[in-house]
Amino acid sequence: MKSSSKPVFSENVSQEDGARAGGLIVIEKEPVNLEMPFGTVDRFLTPNERFYVRCHFPIPKINAKKWRLKIGGAVRKSLTLSLADLRDMKAHTTTSVLECAGNNRVFLMPKVKGAQWGLGAVGNAEWTGVLLADLLKLAGVNDDALEVILEGADEGEVKEQPKPSGKFHYARSLPLRKALSDVLLAYQMNGEPLPESHGAPLRAIVPGWYGMAAVKWLTHILVTKEPFHGFYQTIEYTRWERPHKSLPMQVPLSEVPVKAQISRPELGQVVPAGEKIWVQGTAWTADSAITKVEVSDNWGKTWKKANLLGKPVKNAWQFWEYEWLTPKKRGKQVLMVKATDARGREQPYERDADRGTYNISHCLPIEVEVR
Amino acid sequence: MKSSSKPVFSENVSQEDGARAGGLIVIEKEPVNLEMPFGTVDRFLTPNERFYVRCHFPIPKINAKKWRLKIGGAVRKSLTLSLADLRDMKAHTTTSVLECAGNNRVFLMPKVKGAQWGLGAVGNAEWTGVLLADLLKLAGVNDDALEVILEGADEGEVKEQPKPSGKFHYARSLPLRKALSDVLLAYQMNGEPLPESHGAPLRAIVPGWYGMAAVKWLTHILVTKEPFHGFYQTIEYTRWERPHKSLPMQVPLSEVPVKAQISRPELGQVVPAGEKIWVQGTAWTADSAITKVEVSDNWGKTWKKANLLGKPVKNAWQFWEYEWLTPKKRGKQVLMVKATDARGREQPYERDADRGTYNISHCLPIEVEVR
Repeated sequence: MKSSSKPVFSENVSQEDGARAGGLIVIEKEPVNLEMPFGTVDRFLTPNERFYVRCHFPIPKINAKKWRLKIGGAVRKSLTLSLADLRDMKAHTTTSVLECAGNNRVFLMPKVKGAQWGLGAVGNAEWTGVLLADLLKLAGVNDDALEVILEGADEGEVKEQPKPSGKFHYARSLPLRKALSDVLLAYQMNGEPLPESHGAPLRAIVPGWYGMAAVKWLTHILVTKEPFHGFYQTIEYTRWERPHKSLPMQVPLSEVPVKAQISRPELGQVVPAGEKIWVQGTAWTADSAITKVEVSDNWGKTWKKANLLGKPVKNAWQFWEYEWLTPKKRGKQVLMVKATDARGREQPYERDADRGTYNISHCLPIEVEVR
Repeated sequence: MKSSSKPVFSENVSQEDGARAGGLIVIEKEPVNLEMPFGTVDRFLTPNERFYVRCHFPIPKINAKKWRLKIGGAVRKSLTLSLADLRDMKAHTTTSVLECAGNNRVFLMPKVKGAQWGLGAVGNAEWTGVLLADLLKLAGVNDDALEVILEGADEGEVKEQPKPSGKFHYARSLPLRKALSDVLLAYQMNGEPLPESHGAPLRAIVPGWYGMAAVKWLTHILVTKEPFHGFYQTIEYTRWERPHKSLPMQVPLSEVPVKAQISRPELGQVVPAGEKIWVQGTAWTADSAITKVEVSDNWGKTWKKANLLGKPVKNAWQFWEYEWLTPKKRGKQVLMVKATDARGREQPYERDADRGTYNISHCLPIEVEVR
């Protein structure tokens, strides 16, 4: 990512060291929710051991040999497939960023409920599996189909109303159009068998969408003629839009917005006064390429262009770096970063409160200490 | 309702007495939420002063002379109408029960959030106004229209996530089919001008539906081609259904279920041992007639038929009475009542937890004290 002549912060922490040192930050113990320390980002593909883990319920115990994937609903032929059946199909590999829809929640003021993710509920991996579209073609989708529900083996109860009674499974739907395009059902992550905490034996990867659509421990695919109004579609993972003035309407979250994050310096880090240091990080967007990343050290009054590193890969993240001359004056100093993509979409400076407790993509103030 | 030879509990409380004595029970002061003491039910039409009041936001100040109703969206001709315009149209009068979807919430165990309504968030009134269908015909609904959104002048903020940001108006939608049938836009209640707390100058009355659809202080009618996912359609006033096993789906509440309530004796009332007393109350259902009301004094082991009083009126309530020989043994005694309608729908004995904090229609235990 960077030449050895630049001051470095993270690449001397190896993947093994990170895992050994408990490289992930525990956000919740049960269900297990782990965050990558974003300051450790040092390579294009996030190692499996360093990849954030988001669970809604306890990790289900699955015997991969007995496990089957069932495809039914509005299809001409219901299918039941084993892992071997899937491995026999044409394999596809895609690199995709995966970001939790609640990433950066800890930055929201006032505080909101939900797991208090910092900067690290995001990662970028190479996923290998079968195309959902290939399975749907095998089953034969009916002409009046509208959505595809993905259901996981993970189940549990939720506490706050409105909620379904008793235990229920994690499930999320996709519009048929997306389901028939680039959605992958992955059994490999970065060339290794998919880890248990990441949804083994099979999870969805929905390029360009937040992680809530990337259903883990996948067991059922149901093609439906009506929109799915499940708990994670209507209560969690939603935001408000205003197609009609004065009539806010709830919509399920889908694509990630354009966004850059600063990995180094880290929040609260001490930096030397009046010296050049490298500000670094990654940026990502949905179905487009990052065309510009800009850094501000004066609360957005002026912005300076960062260098984009390497070639853009659609739906993967993009490294960037900016050589910053730190102030001579000692004290607190805020850094911000802003990304723009090839569709002209720009990261917003301010938070839109209609996004509720999710979908956080405004310019976050990263405060460092100049000494 | 009953002959003077029967022991009576309530008809000596006049309408004026009730109002003067603060006849309504304060459930919440701001916004104002008032409940009718259900033991005072003594006539077919609930007096305006005794009718429960449900507000989501402060009662809006409306100058009836300046007030206008706007009809727009997927129509051929948008309309703006004054109250005089509406009074010039053909008037319709209908008697309809109005029940809050949270009526009986105080009976739920464990306790749930929301206004703690007892038995009295229900009333029955004669409503006069214009048919929504007549207005929609005037505007000319487009062929691809799906729903009709009713929006009130009342506005405010809600506290808990997921919620829209800032202030928004109360609004609820109806399927086009219902909007084109018997929905009334009422400017009179029991022959009097619609009271301010009941939505003056104009409110919807949606026969057979819970009160949340009967939007008060109506200002806008928007015909839409897409389903409306407003706050009171997706977060409040919803329940869960299970069209697909293991995939609970949220649906907006609509019709009231078949239900009977005991008005007398009241909860905790002392009744004489080994004597005949009258158990009384009302029953209602959506788009049908009550055909049977049964009373049980042994937790549903056996049921005894009550007498239905007067002629059934569709979507209005039905009085009933049952002469009960009280136990000789003194102590706590539970009474229950169960209604059945002409469609064969029967009030359930047990609570369905998928109904969340609303839609309470199971057989409530009314405990009295035999002495």
